[in-house]
Amino acid sequence: MAGSIYGTLFQISTWGESHGYGIGVTIDGCPAGLPLTEADIQTFLDRRKPGQSRFTTKRKESDKALILSGIFDGYTTGTPISILVKNKDQRSRDYGTILNTYRPGHADYTFDAKYGIRDYRGGGRSSGRETIGRVAAGAIASKLLTQLGIRITAYTKAIGPVTVPESDYDYACISQNSLYMPDNSYARQASEYLEKCITEQDSAGGIIECIVTGMPAGIGETVFEKLDANLAKALMSIGAVKGVEIGDGFQAAKALGSSNNDAFCASGDRVSKRTNHSGGILGGMSDGSPIILRAAIKPTPSIAQPQETIDKSRSPVSLSIHGRHDPVIVPRAVVVVESMTALTLADLLMINMSARMDSLIGFYRRELHC
Amino acid sequence: MAGSIYGTLFQISTWGESHGYGIGVTIDGCPAGLPLTEADIQTFLDRRKPGQSRFTTKRKESDKALILSGIFDGYTTGTPISILVKNKDQRSRDYGTILNTYRPGHADYTFDAKYGIRDYRGGGRSSGRETIGRVAAGAIASKLLTQLGIRITAYTKAIGPVTVPESDYDYACISQNSLYMPDNSYARQASEYLEKCITEQDSAGGIIECIVTGMPAGIGETVFEKLDANLAKALMSIGAVKGVEIGDGFQAAKALGSSNNDAFCASGDRVSKRTNHSGGILGGMSDGSPIILRAAIKPTPSIAQPQETIDKSRSPVSLSIHGRHDPVIVPRAVVVVESMTALTLADLLMINMSARMDSLIGFYRRELHC
Amino acid sequence: MAGSIYGTLFQISTWGESHGYGIGVTIDGCPAGLPLTEADIQTFLDRRKPGQSRFTTKRKESDKALILSGIFDGYTTGTPISILVKNKDQRSRDYGTILNTYRPGHADYTFDAKYGIRDYRGGGRSSGRETIGRVAAGAIASKLLTQLGIRITAYTKAIGPVTVPESDYDYACISQNSLYMPDNSYARQASEYLEKCITEQDSAGGIIECIVTGMPAGIGETVFEKLDANLAKALMSIGAVKGVEIGDGFQAAKALGSSNNDAFCASGDRVSKRTNHSGGILGGMSDGSPIILRAAIKPTPSIAQPQETIDKSRSPVSLSIHGRHDPVIVPRAVVVVESMTALTLADLLMINMSARMDSLIGFYRRELHC
Amino acid sequence: MAGSIYGTLFQISTWGESHGYGIGVTIDGCPAGLPLTEADIQTFLDRRKPGQSRFTTKRKESDKALILSGIFDGYTTGTPISILVKNKDQRSRDYGTILNTYRPGHADYTFDAKYGIRDYRGGGRSSGRETIGRVAAGAIASKLLTQLGIRITAYTKAIGPVTVPESDYDYACISQNSLYMPDNSYARQASEYLEKCITEQDSAGGIIECIVTGMPAGIGETVFEKLDANLAKALMSIGAVKGVEIGDGFQAAKALGSSNNDAFCASGDRVSKRTNHSGGILGGMSDGSPIILRAAIKPTPSIAQPQETIDKSRSPVSLSIHGRHDPVIVPRAVVVVESMTALTLADLLMINMSARMDSLIGFYRRELHC
Repeated sequence: MAGSIYGTLFQISTWGESHGYGIGVTIDGCPAGLPLTEADIQTFLDRRKPGQSRFTTKRKESDKALILSGIFDGYTTGTPISILVKNKDQRSRDYGTILNTYRPGHADYTFDAKYGIRDYRGGGRSSGRETIGRVAAGAIASKLLTQLGIRITAYTKAIGPVTVPESDYDYACISQNSLYMPDNSYARQASEYLEKCITEQDSAGGIIECIVTGMPAGIGETVFEKLDANLAKALMSIGAVKGVEIGDGFQAAKALGSSNNDAFCASGDRVSKRTNHSGGILGGMSDGSPIILRAAIKPTPSIAQPQETIDKSRSPVSLSIHGRHDPVIVPRAVVVVESMTALTLADLLMINMSARMDSLIGFYRRELHC
Repeated sequence: MAGSIYGTLFQISTWGESHGYGIGVTIDGCPAGLPLTEADIQTFLDRRKPGQSRFTTKRKESDKALILSGIFDGYTTGTPISILVKNKDQRSRDYGTILNTYRPGHADYTFDAKYGIRDYRGGGRSSGRETIGRVAAGAIASKLLTQLGIRITAYTKAIGPVTVPESDYDYACISQNSLYMPDNSYARQASEYLEKCITEQDSAGGIIECIVTGMPAGIGETVFEKLDANLAKALMSIGAVKGVEIGDGFQAAKALGSSNNDAFCASGDRVSKRTNHSGGILGGMSDGSPIILRAAIKPTPSIAQPQETIDKSRSPVSLSIHGRHDPVIVPRAVVVVESMTALTLADLLMINMSARMDSLIGFYRRELHC
Repeated sequence: MAGSIYGTLFQISTWGESHGYGIGVTIDGCPAGLPLTEADIQTFLDRRKPGQSRFTTKRKESDKALILSGIFDGYTTGTPISILVKNKDQRSRDYGTILNTYRPGHADYTFDAKYGIRDYRGGGRSSGRETIGRVAAGAIASKLLTQLGIRITAYTKAIGPVTVPESDYDYACISQNSLYMPDNSYARQASEYLEKCITEQDSAGGIIECIVTGMPAGIGETVFEKLDANLAKALMSIGAVKGVEIGDGFQAAKALGSSNNDAFCASGDRVSKRTNHSGGILGGMSDGSPIILRAAIKPTPSIAQPQETIDKSRSPVSLSIHGRHDPVIVPRAVVVVESMTALTLADLLMINMSARMDSLIGFYRRELHC
Repeated sequence: MAGSIYGTLFQISTWGESHGYGIGVTIDGCPAGLPLTEADIQTFLDRRKPGQSRFTTKRKESDKALILSGIFDGYTTGTPISILVKNKDQRSRDYGTILNTYRPGHADYTFDAKYGIRDYRGGGRSSGRETIGRVAAGAIASKLLTQLGIRITAYTKAIGPVTVPESDYDYACISQNSLYMPDNSYARQASEYLEKCITEQDSAGGIIECIVTGMPAGIGETVFEKLDANLAKALMSIGAVKGVEIGDGFQAAKALGSSNNDAFCASGDRVSKRTNHSGGILGGMSDGSPIILRAAIKPTPSIAQPQETIDKSRSPVSLSIHGRHDPVIVPRAVVVVESMTALTLADLLMINMSARMDSLIGFYRRELHC
């Protein structure tokens, strides 16, 4: 199937392999009249760019975004926006040794099983570079949300066993450490943990958390296109994500109804909740409280330690991976989580506009019949 | 949007409210030639039927499935299969007191926020009865999978704090206790916990686990229509699910790459893995190992304890819910998780058939050109 | 695939065979707050009901619509609306002789070729009764359009060689003759032609025309989801339709640019065109002029004359069809064309609401943030 | 909405304006293992390239296709195939005069009405150059079909009033005249007609016909995703198409059932029909006979004659268009019709693979479980 297309009204189509010409995305259905420049996209791409700390791959990529269509006089026109990021620093020779080998934890075997052919260079389409398309599109969705007063904040909640407790959160710290953690001292602990991983030729995973504020209530479509269902798919579609939670998530499974229920209260006409165990979603729709999401990221599968595996001919092989790999991908995945969240919200916000008959009548009276 | 439609090739469309005429589902795109009777569907529905233990609602519903179309001489014909389950034991008067009240943990407020109108009787469309459509369709998807040698086993892994450790699993027990737990003594502990919840006018949540065996490798479509992404959406679309995990899930976030990676091995031409931390999915495609899924279910929000909330006019209200409610929905949700898993797998298995050119050529040579 | 589902935001899912339990449709995504009763749907269904003139099948069907869900206190709630029409006058024994025979002009052979199994009773799913689902849903879409000031008028432009010229149109006549022609004297001519067809055990086709007024400009999505592209699909999906035209249609192919172009003019701020060769659509979007559509309907394939054909075992057979068949289906298809047009427009009108950034901003400021 | 995406399993996403960086398309869902080179695509693009005869625009474009992804070692890999065609000969200054003017027969007004902003340079997204994406993708779909033994032949049936009668068809001629007509003497007549159009500063339309041979029976999904319904949408989505016919099309409306019905016959196990009024489609599925399609193309709206119109401020304007425009677009649209047909067939052929349970069982036993 066409698995590289995402969304219903705000739709994106991504393409590109790690060692091909480049990576790209076409955004189709972005509303007309959104101010947009390449700088808007670059800001997002720079957050996932390699080479920003010693915990990321040494591959050198400027990851420069070119907008090829869909913008006129600085505004979106409602037509498809094509964005291209060329690959520069491909070293395909690095991958010669793993041409026929199925790396543990990677998609080499499953690609072969499905397609019978595989662009093995740098992981091909299953490379982390694939997320460039998501992030470039996510930058646009984010800008759209900003204009509606919606703000997304994503950060690293945990690296391996080092978890920042909610009580210590200081969002100002997120941009102050290269791990995007909301506390600098935990970030230092996490760095030490990663140093140890590197020394031991090992790798780490972690947890990314994402908070959305300013969401109007009622976004999401029951029963299958629920807001939480779509967010879960969005996050789980990111390579290496193995778990997704909304609000209290797995903790809610252990709670009592009396403590998990959030009491409603009101201030004037505005409805809110005294607590937010629900993570801002009730019945699959936003409830007006902040949306709280978490994604569990597995450790980077590429490690330098020798690993047992097999090759294409089913013969046992011992494999040591000495490419340019991140000992942890969590920090670079923060902006990917943010992007997938933004894409999902933009789409559902657009869809929601026709939920009521009086909105339709008002729209066509106001906008079109004058 | 049309949020009550699910799937791409194997597609279902559900309808119905708790206190309306009934609940239904139309399955569109089911392959022709699958033997199917109402008994196949009834077996599944009976597993979610109320009144099976003292931990489920006292509402009496026979939940009898009628097949209205799409079957001829005992086989599916490839045309839409419509299934109807009539409602019997509606007591709308029970809900009069909450007509204008926003129950904590429920979708009353979000429905009002979105649509401005709400069928408040028994929760309307956000009632647990909505899942009847999922389960009736899931029964068909399951039968399809069985014919391909694929088997799904779902069960209650935890009720509140009572968790069955993997080391104690005995699948034979699942059907022996009313909580569908894979161990009878943990089931007894869980029952005691639930008794206490009832006494304290409180409710519990839990965790459902689901294992799929017999899956061929390569199912799932990169990059957005990944198998795990679709399963996450499928499960998170079930009301009350707040978290989803694949394989080691959130535990993977704390692991090292060296321990989380599963070594490939081979026996003859058949590829397998020495461990299964990945939960049977790599790069968004099935890897041939058992698929392992978990869903966290929040405690039933309807509790008899008095709760603070507001009504439609934004005035504070104290609410005690004395309807017929399950103190825990986990056991009845087991078959719902199984059904959503089956629907998702059937769809992706059908989609996968055109992944390779040689399959297309073979198919049209064999099946049609003779 | 799931071929019985139509639409993107305003989505319908139909089911049912000619001789099964009944025919049904689920409308998913209808905006909340539309007043709706069974009478609204019945009015539409009555226009396609058999037995209204001597040119329609003698099958007796009351075709009574039951609404099973989605309505509360007389209004749509935004949840799926399920509609059921039970079959009454099935005479399956009539079809015994054609159990294994491929009727010329029918779908018997293609159903067998695709599915290998076929509900032969009365044509099963390929029966004209399938359109009941379209019409029941179309009634709802039409009501929605009416509230936006959009009106659809469909009628029989031609029966066989008898064509009403545009100069003679009198829309008041449409409901005055059983052929739904916009001129009574042409209707009489057409009746005589049909009498001759009956006498000669033959059948006729014709042309249905459909005019939409009150459409705002800009509806339709370039480049593949154009308004005309979607209308063409909508109409061509009706059994027996073999051609579709917009505006001048095939006549435009012979015209010169200088005569085919419609000059724009303005009255105050309102833009219009001096002529309407375009049929109200330019660049795939409505241009504010009336939309003009035509569908060519082939003659009813069931005729009493003996016809050469084959049976399932590939043996030659001479076939005379003596069931209860319409000598012409055009009059009964008028409301089907109107319904498919309404469904397509409702969907595209909803989709169009998010075309501009300022609409999104306005909507979320007005409707939700107060 | 995302209107620039087409297809369900074989899906394409196009982008690009007439005077932007270029035009592109991403093909997602193409089966792995199809041999593919840039030359395959170039052959198709060359057929729609400007400057091939005196009846096409004088704009000079090499329209060179670059494949940016999805191909490895000469074969498709199952991942998205991105194709880029850069624009070269843009002369935006040519369009300065029509910046604020609504050209009759063009999409200027409807784009403004919908989006409030418009890339007026060369028609932006509504330019004929948009079809480059369709043709590049169509080349791939065509190659896929060829491997299944399916062949598409498209040609100009009529230019203005000059129509080639079926009795005179000689397919060998199609590539011998610059109008792609299946008869050289009619092509000469048509050329003379076009010369007269040029002299009179006018333009012409015409009819394109398309024949598909080698189609297996049973392709297409009832009831909305019928083969003819999808082909009608495909063709009507091409700018300037105002009518679509299958088989006898509008002639069928005038025929009698006895003459319009095609008698089935058999030769061994193979079913065929004595005539083909149905155009190879019955009940929305291919019937094994050649598929016959026709599209009516309106005259090029850009003409040098002065035309009455208005500008953005609603003031009357007299407009003479002196850009580089084709007096007829029909010959260049032939390959576009062929491409849209190929894309539609490839998609429906892939979808059809899961129509039967025994196909699924066979596939997963053969291909995967060995």
